Amino acid sequence: MSAERPSSLSNEVKPESVSLCPLGTAAVAPERELLCVFGTGDFGRSLGQCLLQSGYRVVYGSRRPHSCGPLPQGAQVMSHAAAAQQSSVVFLCVHRQHYDFLETLAPQLKGKVLVDVSNNLKKNLYPEANAEYLQRLIPGAHVVKAFNTLSAWALQNGPSDANRQVYLCGDSAEAKRAVTDIGTKLGFTVLDRGTLSAARELEDFPLRLFPEWRLPLRIATGLTAFFFFYLLIRDVIYAYVEQDKDISFRIMVSLANKVFPIVSLIMLSLCYLPGVIAAVLQLYRGTKYRRFPDWLDRWMLCRKQLGLIALGFAFLHVLYTLIIPIRYYVRYKIAESTISKIKENRTTEFDLTTAWRADSYYSMGILGFGLYLLLGITSLPSVSNALSWREFSFIQSKLGYLTLFFCTFHTYLYGWDRFLRPSSYKWYSPAGYMLSLVVPSVVLVLKLLLILPCVDRSLTRVRQGWERTDPEEESRKTLLT
Amino acid sequence: MSAERPSSLSNEVKPESVSLCPLGTAAVAPERELLCVFGTGDFGRSLGQCLLQSGYRVVYGSRRPHSCGPLPQGAQVMSHAAAAQQSSVVFLCVHRQHYDFLETLAPQLKGKVLVDVSNNLKKNLYPEANAEYLQRLIPGAHVVKAFNTLSAWALQNGPSDANRQVYLCGDSAEAKRAVTDIGTKLGFTVLDRGTLSAARELEDFPLRLFPEWRLPLRIATGLTAFFFFYLLIRDVIYAYVEQDKDISFRIMVSLANKVFPIVSLIMLSLCYLPGVIAAVLQLYRGTKYRRFPDWLDRWMLCRKQLGLIALGFAFLHVLYTLIIPIRYYVRYKIAESTISKIKENRTTEFDLTTAWRADSYYSMGILGFGLYLLLGITSLPSVSNALSWREFSFIQSKLGYLTLFFCTFHTYLYGWDRFLRPSSYKWYSPAGYMLSLVVPSVVLVLKLLLILPCVDRSLTRVRQGWERTDPEEESRKTLLT
Amino acid sequence: MSAERPSSLSNEVKPESVSLCPLGTAAVAPERELLCVFGTGDFGRSLGQCLLQSGYRVVYGSRRPHSCGPLPQGAQVMSHAAAAQQSSVVFLCVHRQHYDFLETLAPQLKGKVLVDVSNNLKKNLYPEANAEYLQRLIPGAHVVKAFNTLSAWALQNGPSDANRQVYLCGDSAEAKRAVTDIGTKLGFTVLDRGTLSAARELEDFPLRLFPEWRLPLRIATGLTAFFFFYLLIRDVIYAYVEQDKDISFRIMVSLANKVFPIVSLIMLSLCYLPGVIAAVLQLYRGTKYRRFPDWLDRWMLCRKQLGLIALGFAFLHVLYTLIIPIRYYVRYKIAESTISKIKENRTTEFDLTTAWRADSYYSMGILGFGLYLLLGITSLPSVSNALSWREFSFIQSKLGYLTLFFCTFHTYLYGWDRFLRPSSYKWYSPAGYMLSLVVPSVVLVLKLLLILPCVDRSLTRVRQGWERTDPEEESRKTLLT
Repeated sequence: MSAERPSSLSNEVKPESVSLCPLGTAAVAPERELLCVFGTGDFGRSLGQCLLQSGYRVVYGSRRPHSCGPLPQGAQVMSHAAAAQQSSVVFLCVHRQHYDFLETLAPQLKGKVLVDVSNNLKKNLYPEANAEYLQRLIPGAHVVKAFNTLSAWALQNGPSDANRQVYLCGDSAEAKRAVTDIGTKLGFTVLDRGTLSAARELEDFPLRLFPEWRLPLRIATGLTAFFFFYLLIRDVIYAYVEQDKDISFRIMVSLANKVFPIVSLIMLSLCYLPGVIAAVLQLYRGTKYRRFPDWLDRWMLCRKQLGLIALGFAFLHVLYTLIIPIRYYVRYKIAESTISKIKENRTTEFDLTTAWRADSYYSMGILGFGLYLLLGITSLPSVSNALSWREFSFIQSKLGYLTLFFCTFHTYLYGWDRFLRPSSYKWYSPAGYMLSLVVPSVVLVLKLLLILPCVDRSLTRVRQGWERTDPEEESRKTLLT
Repeated sequence: MSAERPSSLSNEVKPESVSLCPLGTAAVAPERELLCVFGTGDFGRSLGQCLLQSGYRVVYGSRRPHSCGPLPQGAQVMSHAAAAQQSSVVFLCVHRQHYDFLETLAPQLKGKVLVDVSNNLKKNLYPEANAEYLQRLIPGAHVVKAFNTLSAWALQNGPSDANRQVYLCGDSAEAKRAVTDIGTKLGFTVLDRGTLSAARELEDFPLRLFPEWRLPLRIATGLTAFFFFYLLIRDVIYAYVEQDKDISFRIMVSLANKVFPIVSLIMLSLCYLPGVIAAVLQLYRGTKYRRFPDWLDRWMLCRKQLGLIALGFAFLHVLYTLIIPIRYYVRYKIAESTISKIKENRTTEFDLTTAWRADSYYSMGILGFGLYLLLGITSLPSVSNALSWREFSFIQSKLGYLTLFFCTFHTYLYGWDRFLRPSSYKWYSPAGYMLSLVVPSVVLVLKLLLILPCVDRSLTRVRQGWERTDPEEESRKTLLT
Repeated sequence: MSAERPSSLSNEVKPESVSLCPLGTAAVAPERELLCVFGTGDFGRSLGQCLLQSGYRVVYGSRRPHSCGPLPQGAQVMSHAAAAQQSSVVFLCVHRQHYDFLETLAPQLKGKVLVDVSNNLKKNLYPEANAEYLQRLIPGAHVVKAFNTLSAWALQNGPSDANRQVYLCGDSAEAKRAVTDIGTKLGFTVLDRGTLSAARELEDFPLRLFPEWRLPLRIATGLTAFFFFYLLIRDVIYAYVEQDKDISFRIMVSLANKVFPIVSLIMLSLCYLPGVIAAVLQLYRGTKYRRFPDWLDRWMLCRKQLGLIALGFAFLHVLYTLIIPIRYYVRYKIAESTISKIKENRTTEFDLTTAWRADSYYSMGILGFGLYLLLGITSLPSVSNALSWREFSFIQSKLGYLTLFFCTFHTYLYGWDRFLRPSSYKWYSPAGYMLSLVVPSVVLVLKLLLILPCVDRSLTRVRQGWERTDPEEESRKTLLT
């Protein structure tokens, strides 16, 4: 077995503080630093192997140094107390619930750098972060939270894509520097996240599963489901009930290509609605120093995600539109119409207005989608990092409203004169695209009002810190003083 | 009012150096550092609130500590001199024109870290950077320029997308480290930009609005306008005048779909023209140590932007092309042609050459666009950062020329035999795509010449630092010595 | 000549340790630090110019200080020994084969920071890294490897895109800090890569030309070539031989649009095959602590590249599909079919099943491509850096398998009932899309087996570090102890 894994783990289980000789002969290779790892579980083994490969010597601290299972080849194993005394840096690869044994080691750990790599299985399992608990347990040690955001895979295979970065935090700058050096030597990019109070944030990070995408995804799912069933009833079931036709095959493309653009337009306008509401609130209150309601704050913080999901739906709409001419149904219809024209010897006149309308409709859609994509590209982290704040807000605000305008106009052109035709209102219900126009139209009208010179001037003053002094409250204040 | 904003600002205006007691009882929470903020304007308040939320204590320095308006809850306010003495770090949130009052505080500020967060309303308003002026004013303080690239929004809402990074510069490494610690604790990624001489650059950053995009955008606008009117005259107005037909509806799609690819191809070739000119210049001069003319330098520095705009136009061209078959006009025409064929009982033979030409034309276009996109992706900051210089130049140069070749060939195939047909030259003017072929053809021919073995050898020598010694100048030098 | 290059190089070759006066009058501008550059070749000159522009003073060390060619204006030139004594930092811009002369300078270089900027022409030219060799040569100096990943162009023109980052490594933290300060002042982002043992990696970096892309590109080329010829024979040559029809024009679009999706699907499934194999191996071995065979390791490390190439091919497939309706051949065929229908007075019934099948086929393809793109976007470095490990593996694994499922289903729908029709098997060979379905079907079936609750439980245990104790080996161990 061991022959097959050259740089892997072996079962070096020898009596008493094992293979101590290398420590004595350290003078031979004076540069190889010795690090201590507490815990011989999966993470501990992977970390030890990784440290060994990067040229460190590793000593494990274990409760049962004589029977602690396979360890990386070249590592030693001792009791916790003995191991801790060998090194100035101790990696703690133990679950939080077993931390209490460390209290007895407090004298040996005094002044040492204690690296907490632990994670919890759930958020908010404990009242304080593991690292802070550890620091409280052993006040004499310099606790550094680090390496917990890495997967065991990353440690075993070296840094790669999503695993290049190591975050750390701690109260001692000296201790952080020592851990930074180790992380750098292992090939990771180490990012300092500040004092130990950031430990909770670091511990929550590996548990994160798109928290900021949840609300937007729920909105998207809700809207999609609603419009799917709404259009299913209006199109497929209506045709089945009233005209006795089975057009259920339309669900796959035609219906999808109605739902996607509708949801996309609504979600795009939902990106801009909170900004407009906030401006109205600030104007109404006459100050920017009052907090927005919580729902508005939350809404504003997920605008980027709303926009990106909207972009995804717009992208699907584009693809669904472009395959129209290669659909069997469409080809059949076109051939039918040509054949029937010939048979009935009808001639249709070329309608210039229709040509203008149809081409404008497509053109607006294309330009809108182009701008949409531009917005998406600028929200890539590396692109938005390279932009100044002024540039970012120029794109996200000015170009954003232009996009919204193009897409709304595109939808109005789609409707054209059908808004007035009674046949559009099957079962007295409006068509899907009409519903989709409500929010964007409101946003655009409100925005138009807000950029009227007089309103804009007031708003700018409020945003620069000016406050409208409410005469009533003013007098109240005077009374209090 | 205050009840509604729990973590917001209050009007704690009390007599004399306000709420000093917490300073006396600092022993209770010894880790909470005290920071001083000069200036109670919008930025000062936002910064103070942000510092308080991150666990610092904040003391404001104000001219009128008793009537300085609402401040963040928990902050104290004193006179400037008193406040400065409380902390080793002073944030200066005051406009530059009011800096002179600081001269009187020089003794109190001696040895302190003075963080200049100021920005100007315009570039080059003053002969020296604000931070340098400040350093000159108070030579005893350690001035650090920082936080000026953040928006007030970022300070109020914590770091997010375009506001994650804080740049700083300063002459004292110790002072920079202190400010870096604060920035990290506030959750920002702090990037050191060097000594205080970089302050002007940092102060210009927030004023920046795509400076490197201006020239390329102007070129794009000029070309677009020129070709739009050129084609409007040649297509729409020609048809109206000579054939009395109104085809104005074509402006929306057909005309756009001519202008976009034409401008795209020209701009792509403009990316590669300066490189070719530079090589010719180096060959002609026989040295690479002579500066290029300014216009060439400027041109070379905006090649990336030229290319990205060209990519944007190519993308629009693709979309405009793909919607062709769903256009009302095209469907009408196809039906018309089929009907007329039947009525007149014409049969058209399938033309193999046309099939080859048309398919090659599309294939070249698709492959060209694919490479185009690849070039665009590799110019994303995070992608190009991950490439070695050799890889980057391989993609941008080798694949770039291949893209240019594909796109140029695509356009030649579009023209095919129409180059020779007199009917292509309405009103004796060449078609738009013919004009678009001039620059790319020149670039490709010149590049072909440059990669001829003999020319390439000379060029490589020059680029490796070899210089052709002009016999004349050589003799002149000898005379001078 | 010199009049034309204001900030460029001059021929200031004066007798004896040249222009020493500035050193004496250094008190005038005390902040301008003096740096020493050994070597007056191309890189040395570019570096010197760059340092001068950033406000440093530069002294060159040269073998022949009186005739060393043009140097940047403002730089001095001396003998190596004299130059080294002027500065605490010495940049070594000399080829490795000339390093031996430095041994004589060991006394002057003692305690100095020696910056090695050298690169080699090939990998593995020497047994040890240049910087390590240098450190061995002059043990008293603090060698720092840096700036070698920059191109001369970057030094002459300042940091830009692919040249913003400077990597450095070295054993002395103090020396690294000094070089970091210089790099930052020159405008670069300096990244510490650890100790001098990382020097080889840094020296190999500029020689890198997509090493991790080689295998995937070779696979892609091989598959493309194979399927191209396979389909050429089955489609074009078969038609020519058996039906005497020349359909060679189909190579450009129809054939390409078969090859691209086939290769794309196979390569996508090749991304997921190694993961499945690894899981099976781990289950079979009952431990995760045994190394995978080398070929599997290599395969797993290039999954990202396989996926991105697959995405590129899928993108081409999409474009080739979308231009179908504007192809001359297709338009001709459709017109022909309509005309023949009328002439023969045939009527075709609208087939609901075909409509369902065709629309589902397109819908699956579009959704698959949408997810495909999402996978591609999340593998952009800046995006994947922002993801936690859990998020990254959720997208790359869960969404990845969903993508594979959609694309495989899309292909099955394409085949539909043709799998059973004998006419599909021209010359007894299966169609291309049938071959492309083999690997993805195997991967999906294996994955289905692996997520069966009982199998999944075992696998999870193994991945959490559990090991199946082989009874035989267990007894062997007992015997040994």
